[in-house]
Amino acid sequence: MKKLGIGLIGSGFMGKAHALAFRTVGGVFDLPAAVELEILADTDTGRAAAAARSFGFQRSTADWRAVVNDPRVAIVAITTPNLLHKPMALAAIAAGKAVYCEKPLATTVDDAREMVAAAKAAGVVTQVGFNYLCNPMIGLAKEIVDSGELGEITGFRGIHAEGFMADPATPYNWRCQPEQAGGALADIGSHIIALARYLAGPIDRVCGETITVHQERRLADGSGSKPVCVDDQSHCLARFASGASGNLSASWIATGRQMQHAFELYGTRGALDFTQERFNELRLYQAGQPRGRDGFKTITAGPEHPDYGAFCPASGHQIGFNDLKVIEVKRLIEAVCGVAPAYADFREALEVERVAAAVRKSAEQGRWVPVAVC
Amino acid sequence: MKKLGIGLIGSGFMGKAHALAFRTVGGVFDLPAAVELEILADTDTGRAAAAARSFGFQRSTADWRAVVNDPRVAIVAITTPNLLHKPMALAAIAAGKAVYCEKPLATTVDDAREMVAAAKAAGVVTQVGFNYLCNPMIGLAKEIVDSGELGEITGFRGIHAEGFMADPATPYNWRCQPEQAGGALADIGSHIIALARYLAGPIDRVCGETITVHQERRLADGSGSKPVCVDDQSHCLARFASGASGNLSASWIATGRQMQHAFELYGTRGALDFTQERFNELRLYQAGQPRGRDGFKTITAGPEHPDYGAFCPASGHQIGFNDLKVIEVKRLIEAVCGVAPAYADFREALEVERVAAAVRKSAEQGRWVPVAVC
Amino acid sequence: MKKLGIGLIGSGFMGKAHALAFRTVGGVFDLPAAVELEILADTDTGRAAAAARSFGFQRSTADWRAVVNDPRVAIVAITTPNLLHKPMALAAIAAGKAVYCEKPLATTVDDAREMVAAAKAAGVVTQVGFNYLCNPMIGLAKEIVDSGELGEITGFRGIHAEGFMADPATPYNWRCQPEQAGGALADIGSHIIALARYLAGPIDRVCGETITVHQERRLADGSGSKPVCVDDQSHCLARFASGASGNLSASWIATGRQMQHAFELYGTRGALDFTQERFNELRLYQAGQPRGRDGFKTITAGPEHPDYGAFCPASGHQIGFNDLKVIEVKRLIEAVCGVAPAYADFREALEVERVAAAVRKSAEQGRWVPVAVC
Amino acid sequence: MKKLGIGLIGSGFMGKAHALAFRTVGGVFDLPAAVELEILADTDTGRAAAAARSFGFQRSTADWRAVVNDPRVAIVAITTPNLLHKPMALAAIAAGKAVYCEKPLATTVDDAREMVAAAKAAGVVTQVGFNYLCNPMIGLAKEIVDSGELGEITGFRGIHAEGFMADPATPYNWRCQPEQAGGALADIGSHIIALARYLAGPIDRVCGETITVHQERRLADGSGSKPVCVDDQSHCLARFASGASGNLSASWIATGRQMQHAFELYGTRGALDFTQERFNELRLYQAGQPRGRDGFKTITAGPEHPDYGAFCPASGHQIGFNDLKVIEVKRLIEAVCGVAPAYADFREALEVERVAAAVRKSAEQGRWVPVAVC
Repeated sequence: MKKLGIGLIGSGFMGKAHALAFRTVGGVFDLPAAVELEILADTDTGRAAAAARSFGFQRSTADWRAVVNDPRVAIVAITTPNLLHKPMALAAIAAGKAVYCEKPLATTVDDAREMVAAAKAAGVVTQVGFNYLCNPMIGLAKEIVDSGELGEITGFRGIHAEGFMADPATPYNWRCQPEQAGGALADIGSHIIALARYLAGPIDRVCGETITVHQERRLADGSGSKPVCVDDQSHCLARFASGASGNLSASWIATGRQMQHAFELYGTRGALDFTQERFNELRLYQAGQPRGRDGFKTITAGPEHPDYGAFCPASGHQIGFNDLKVIEVKRLIEAVCGVAPAYADFREALEVERVAAAVRKSAEQGRWVPVAVC
Repeated sequence: MKKLGIGLIGSGFMGKAHALAFRTVGGVFDLPAAVELEILADTDTGRAAAAARSFGFQRSTADWRAVVNDPRVAIVAITTPNLLHKPMALAAIAAGKAVYCEKPLATTVDDAREMVAAAKAAGVVTQVGFNYLCNPMIGLAKEIVDSGELGEITGFRGIHAEGFMADPATPYNWRCQPEQAGGALADIGSHIIALARYLAGPIDRVCGETITVHQERRLADGSGSKPVCVDDQSHCLARFASGASGNLSASWIATGRQMQHAFELYGTRGALDFTQERFNELRLYQAGQPRGRDGFKTITAGPEHPDYGAFCPASGHQIGFNDLKVIEVKRLIEAVCGVAPAYADFREALEVERVAAAVRKSAEQGRWVPVAVC
Repeated sequence: MKKLGIGLIGSGFMGKAHALAFRTVGGVFDLPAAVELEILADTDTGRAAAAARSFGFQRSTADWRAVVNDPRVAIVAITTPNLLHKPMALAAIAAGKAVYCEKPLATTVDDAREMVAAAKAAGVVTQVGFNYLCNPMIGLAKEIVDSGELGEITGFRGIHAEGFMADPATPYNWRCQPEQAGGALADIGSHIIALARYLAGPIDRVCGETITVHQERRLADGSGSKPVCVDDQSHCLARFASGASGNLSASWIATGRQMQHAFELYGTRGALDFTQERFNELRLYQAGQPRGRDGFKTITAGPEHPDYGAFCPASGHQIGFNDLKVIEVKRLIEAVCGVAPAYADFREALEVERVAAAVRKSAEQGRWVPVAVC
Repeated sequence: MKKLGIGLIGSGFMGKAHALAFRTVGGVFDLPAAVELEILADTDTGRAAAAARSFGFQRSTADWRAVVNDPRVAIVAITTPNLLHKPMALAAIAAGKAVYCEKPLATTVDDAREMVAAAKAAGVVTQVGFNYLCNPMIGLAKEIVDSGELGEITGFRGIHAEGFMADPATPYNWRCQPEQAGGALADIGSHIIALARYLAGPIDRVCGETITVHQERRLADGSGSKPVCVDDQSHCLARFASGASGNLSASWIATGRQMQHAFELYGTRGALDFTQERFNELRLYQAGQPRGRDGFKTITAGPEHPDYGAFCPASGHQIGFNDLKVIEVKRLIEAVCGVAPAYADFREALEVERVAAAVRKSAEQGRWVPVAVC
């Protein structure tokens, strides 16, 4: 069986999630290739070694270029700070590797465009970590939409809201840095943009605003405070190419929210209602039910839904966040093996960034902005 | 005890709701005056007589002017088609009556402004039927916001969505008529505008759109179809005078929804979450709870909340839609007796219409519009 | 139109609920008779007069016998302490009145049996206040069960739990008195017994226990404390005549619960799930849905459900607790006018008491007890 | 670092779950030993080899004794049909291995007692797969109960209901075999017994019934049908040593249910409410909140709760069923390394079986049965 060596850059929250997914995926799915955890890089030699040991990588390094150029590595996974995504991805592409990059793909649309072009020119497989799209219930939602049973899609109302920056006393951190593509819109709003596109199709134009509520944050080291210019929350109106309309919101100051990645999608023949807070459920309304017996039906994740059955043959047992990453990695491996196209690839991530950029531009100009020009 | 004669114009859905409220209110609340159901008008003599009999009015008429000019009538309640609100209200004001008018107050902002001016000049008490504001849980929400315990209000995300026009086969009806102030924004969006203002304060500017999804509807009599130019759904971004930001949506094509009058309100110290679908509940998050023990708390309506106790001394028993009308009427009577100011009065209803008008203007111009100029 | 004079005994919580229902019912429903609020009795002359005035009764008295014997009274409504139900009901029956009595019908099964016999001999209409049975969603549940679409009923799991006695510091009160048929089982468990019977049919035998958690309670006047011998909670296993099995619980020490009047009912072809905490909703599962698209459907109360439409022609608006009483009174009036049999009548209330008595007997004997012998 | 070789017997649903857990656990947790996937046994050589390959075991065999006696194996994991648990566990114990056995431990209480005695005599670590106890939210629940903040525990109402045998057309299978400890009570009711004991402590006595609704099932091969004598559902009343009382239900004919492993627990100072259907949530009510602001709080799983943080440093992301198994395996390894005692071990599993046996005995005798004598 073909072997695919994995090189992982970064060993933080997402680094661990990637590592676990690569470690687990072969036990869950029948894969077209065997996964080998080859080498892990982190900036600190000791931390890299410790992470390699606990995650199960065979080697470690403090030099990410060693990963990218390792001949045994077929897939480079990038989970570093956002500013580093571009140089690392370009180097990996130049080395002919498949690239699996955390979102956001880049910190500017221009950078993302350059990365897409490079990947296309090199013909390498790419994937970006929009893991919420890998949820079996989102897969079911897409099946339902694509089947046409909801009729014409007329509306989409989406949000990604968390509260981790709600407290004014939360110190300034990398998420506040504009050069890291900071801000709620880029950081977490990208998830709901990706979801909106996945289910309701391309977005033609947006009209939005970006708001910085806490315009100054204290420094963690107690040395004073620093102005913040990235958005704490962002709202936009959106028009889809299909004619559907709606709005999208992003907030990291949504006090009390922990994972309100949620949408309502309306069609002329039905509707869907979902929140990541209960992501093993999807609520479906189907028009044409007898009056007085109609209602939203709560569907529970089960083996009939995409990829669930590999985790558990019985419905109702539920998968978790890390399992979404396993599905993501499985899709990446299938793409690398030519079984199916990757999704979301760099191209799709660029489209998501273009929408976010259009929202920002619209916010500056106080008017609607076509997504095409961003 | 002082007696207040009631004259009711209209005996349809809302006419019955008004009648029931006036009939019931004295048994529920200790009122500063006794309510007398004097006279009911409807366009058809027989229907007026039948309605008067079943609702408990002493007399009936086919001439609404007889109600307005009846010396025994102190309060004129108007539940007729929207176009008639203005002439009836002006006549009632001219006769020195208190006026209780269903929403929307008028079909244009100019008309609403004229009605406000007339009421002010005459010094009569007015009230408009934004009954959802009378919910004890909304009263609790307002208490919580006004107490400052949520900190500075940063965000409001509201919607009023129902599905009664979702089916393309639903025939053209009065709601489709622009001259009746038709459209989802005016018809039901006004409820969420009123709620946003009630809880989060005045709205400074909006940027919105209005969408007509079903641009033609069949005529109920089978004689063909008719173009529709009012909105089926509307979305807007909103900036509040307080600096808070958010969005508001209205839709009557929200397939499957029956009463999604819902909001999320965020402050720096807490949050509220509510839907009219479960309107005896309010979800409250309070910052500062111990980590790992924090969460949204579901509060159930009870006698500690405004006006609930008059219906039932025990929590958890729940009030219904008609009870909201009873509370509304109780507040009207207290206003007429000088106990407390009316809310929402004509002035507030004008403010709501100005927001809706600003959304429409913004939709035409594709840019932000200050509410002030509408 | 025929007139029905109402005589009400008691003006507390339930007295007010009865009064409001009689006052409102004619405006909500097209009744076969007109309701006249004739006379109200309470033990204190002043309180009786005040209540009569605020509820809208024409006369008042401190002598309940004056109500029972009033020639203008056709229906006697009894909302007094439980020990008084029997003498008042027997007197009303003797006077040929229809009797509408709050639950429990009596404080012993023997008394209840005597009252049933008297009512039967006199041929008067009777009704007992099991208001939760009047909920349109319970009506829908019964329609669904009776239609056979759930298949054979196999299981019923019911509870009525509230927390009003959960605090050990709550003082001794009438609910603690065994001679008033005190205890959670009799006081609120009777509601879930009535519901179980309504939906799943007669109960053949039970095996239960009754527990007094707080065996002593302080006296409200500070003069010490008093032993409590009635149950704080009760659980039983139940076998239905149909062969279905399940359990029933009652608790008034369910800390935090305000109205957990709830059941799950299973059949071979479907299931129902309900809680009074959200009593305008019923959850329905229907077998035979496509795998992966199946789930419990949340049905919202609307005009297609029994009696809802008279309150509001649109679904989703919701009715409240007092509206359940209006429906109860409407059914009583229809029974008095011969339109439809009363439910729950004295006979049904006796059956409920027999089940409760069997639970108590079973608790004493530590074994199953047939309901028949109680 | 110490190495622990794993030998797995069985490669079905639970075999895969065990394998995934052992494969993943070292990447998630900092363990006191390294896990080595040594050898996997299944009855069929080919299936064993394929499973070993996909799960990552180094060797495979068709002879389970080869696993038990493998010198490199320190932990034997048993996921075979229930009848085989005893001989395999006894052999593993005799070989001095730690034993990790799926539930039920054995098919009779006597067998379970023998296994407990053997493990005790040999001094080996044992663990039984009551994975739902490993949920961080159940860990939180236990912390809350043990802290005393709920006061004295007064009631527990538990259920484990699924619908996989609800359809009368579902064929006869191993779950129907009494010699496999078949029946809903033993198969899934054991989960709710284990949970009740974990949170509310030992159960003193029970009074229960067991019901076979579908008394005959067709054979899958079409060769006719076969009588079923194990229970489809079971209900019991339970008295805890603490004095708390309540009931427990088990059903595999609960049409529409997929994982209703749920409880309500009441104390004099608070309450908990939980369902495995949303197992990343726990609802908590705390007495003493201000009236009108009180309610059940929904706590979402996060890194403050036992073991969650190893999967994800951020709350709200959620863990899945397989993650519960990872936690279970982590606890096993810690027990083997002497870090902490195992839970649930064989002794605890025996206690669970004694409760189930007492329910069965009670059902036969129609009376209360002390758990002690079973």
